[in-house]
Amino acid sequence: MATHSQPFDYAARCQRVRESLRAAGIDALLVGPSSDLFYLIGLNRPQSERLTHFILPAAADESPRLILPSFETALAEPLAHFFDLVPWEETESPFELFAASLPAARTGQPLRLAVADQIYAHFLYRLQAAAPDAEFLPGGNLLNPVRMVKEAQELEYLTQAGAAADRTYMALLELPLLGMSEAEVKQQLMALLPQHGHDPGAPAGAIVGVGENGASPHHHVGPRRIQAGDAVVVDFGSGVNGYWSDMTRSFHFGPPSDEYRRVYDIVNETNQVAFEAVRPGVTAESIDAVARAHIIAAGYEEGILHRTGHGLGFDLHEAPYIVQGDTTVLQEGMVFSIEPGIYLKGRFGVRIEDIVTVTADGARRFNLSTHDLQVL
Amino acid sequence: MATHSQPFDYAARCQRVRESLRAAGIDALLVGPSSDLFYLIGLNRPQSERLTHFILPAAADESPRLILPSFETALAEPLAHFFDLVPWEETESPFELFAASLPAARTGQPLRLAVADQIYAHFLYRLQAAAPDAEFLPGGNLLNPVRMVKEAQELEYLTQAGAAADRTYMALLELPLLGMSEAEVKQQLMALLPQHGHDPGAPAGAIVGVGENGASPHHHVGPRRIQAGDAVVVDFGSGVNGYWSDMTRSFHFGPPSDEYRRVYDIVNETNQVAFEAVRPGVTAESIDAVARAHIIAAGYEEGILHRTGHGLGFDLHEAPYIVQGDTTVLQEGMVFSIEPGIYLKGRFGVRIEDIVTVTADGARRFNLSTHDLQVL
Repeated sequence: MATHSQPFDYAARCQRVRESLRAAGIDALLVGPSSDLFYLIGLNRPQSERLTHFILPAAADESPRLILPSFETALAEPLAHFFDLVPWEETESPFELFAASLPAARTGQPLRLAVADQIYAHFLYRLQAAAPDAEFLPGGNLLNPVRMVKEAQELEYLTQAGAAADRTYMALLELPLLGMSEAEVKQQLMALLPQHGHDPGAPAGAIVGVGENGASPHHHVGPRRIQAGDAVVVDFGSGVNGYWSDMTRSFHFGPPSDEYRRVYDIVNETNQVAFEAVRPGVTAESIDAVARAHIIAAGYEEGILHRTGHGLGFDLHEAPYIVQGDTTVLQEGMVFSIEPGIYLKGRFGVRIEDIVTVTADGARRFNLSTHDLQVL
Repeated sequence: MATHSQPFDYAARCQRVRESLRAAGIDALLVGPSSDLFYLIGLNRPQSERLTHFILPAAADESPRLILPSFETALAEPLAHFFDLVPWEETESPFELFAASLPAARTGQPLRLAVADQIYAHFLYRLQAAAPDAEFLPGGNLLNPVRMVKEAQELEYLTQAGAAADRTYMALLELPLLGMSEAEVKQQLMALLPQHGHDPGAPAGAIVGVGENGASPHHHVGPRRIQAGDAVVVDFGSGVNGYWSDMTRSFHFGPPSDEYRRVYDIVNETNQVAFEAVRPGVTAESIDAVARAHIIAAGYEEGILHRTGHGLGFDLHEAPYIVQGDTTVLQEGMVFSIEPGIYLKGRFGVRIEDIVTVTADGARRFNLSTHDLQVL
């Protein structure tokens, strides 16, 4: 459970979202346990069958309120300086409390409620049943624009996370990897992540693809061992104060073939041209288009299996997405991955991923580990 | 990512659910990445912004189908012997594929689609938009009755998980706990769980409440150190082949007060009377009523803060719930916790939790660690 030693200004965040609600003619935003809730009020609770639910009214004169199990009140009290707590006992229905806690509809209008992205269907159905006259609408488009633009402290945590990933990678390369299985390499990575600056106990993940397995971008680790002549892809990340790192490097054991070198160079160049295309005012999908065009021009269109990147913050994957169809206009302070790859089925894959942030006139990388091909 | 060395008969599970669908007049069940999906087809994927979606038609002559990102096809192929794969490329809309993959409606009827509990709202809205003429209905009531009754192999894994929790607890009590902080005790527990039979890398959790913190049932660990005279509550669990353990014990450092002994005895008796009330044919809520009545008769009604228990399996909390309002009729093979507690605010708490399964004529405990008060 990540907690922040330097708390954010949650009231200000809620204020920004309330302005979006008013602009969109929404009466309140509904948020369950999720990264959205952690972002808005600092409460980090797991999804659960017990209703925990934050109601953020649009009207400035209505207090936000948090419905939660009575016996968990102590967990929320330290945060509840700008919202009310509405506890429910185990033997009462939280959905009646929910209905009673909604703001009033504007005269002659149905109540318009925006629903955060990560509310489970079974809760949504019961919330709808409890407020049958209200209109329930998707709310991600109201929250994501606020979450996408990172505050200075968030950028600082993401910078620390990027540096922790760099140190983890350096430490990994010092290990005797030749002969290890993918599963063993992952185990080493899981141990290195907290040793090099990620928070102990933070969620962590790793993909290790050896040889032909590197051509499957989301390969699970397995028993395949690294042998001389193998290409390897490692993709890993974990959290610093709740903010993710995410980095991929590809390297080779023994002298690589000419084709591996060529593919590696194309991916590396693609990473760089995509990075250089980032600046405020261009769209997320335009960065993807630049990356795809570079790989296609080099003759490897069939080796493209996935988009160029994804936003990152509290969630490992969040808006914006660097993919055709995401027309988000990039702004200073947005953070996302640039991770082009080329995958040759049955042979090998190459992916090089850095996290970047949009600056006033371009972009800055959080991962500074070399892109030069490492031959081990 | 848990995988089963002895796979279950997923086709048979889907068959049982399809019978429920037909009986309820539902045309298809929709399932996203979740414990439900892992249960039905053995695919364990995280929730993600990329649509992965299983469509289980009710009609016996329609094939089930799994919509998934094209570059993850390799992960699902080994499982896809009784359903079709419908891969989508990064540049196409999976929601159009979803609409095209639905079974036909019966003549003159709208298509009736049941939605699994753990589908996120933002997906539900987009599925609804892609199939505007279909009726979307909650589906948990169709899946849960099948998942609740455990198969022999599931009971075996849960038995192993219970034994692993017992060994973890024994090992914990051998450590020099006096003087440790709650956070340190949790760290020890996190290390012991995989050492004593839980799967390395499986999700794991622990609550450690020392002294007055034991009176907050979902207390986070903190800096509070165990001193002579302190009561302690530890609640922990992790996974064996994806199936959870969950166990709580309460113990004391130095001679306990008369009131602590009395409260401890009441909780212990409550655990036993609830256990003895379990048998096929009685309701889940009746077990809660027995437990509450016992604590109330002993004069500690104000110390009751939560229900008596929760079902457990792939999910740490799943149906049935041992709480007023859950009228599930218990059947042989159901599995849930019995975890009564008494909490005296500002002083201490006592909770004793075992996982039990309903047998032909009563119940059996998966946790066999002593209930005798340990004075350390």
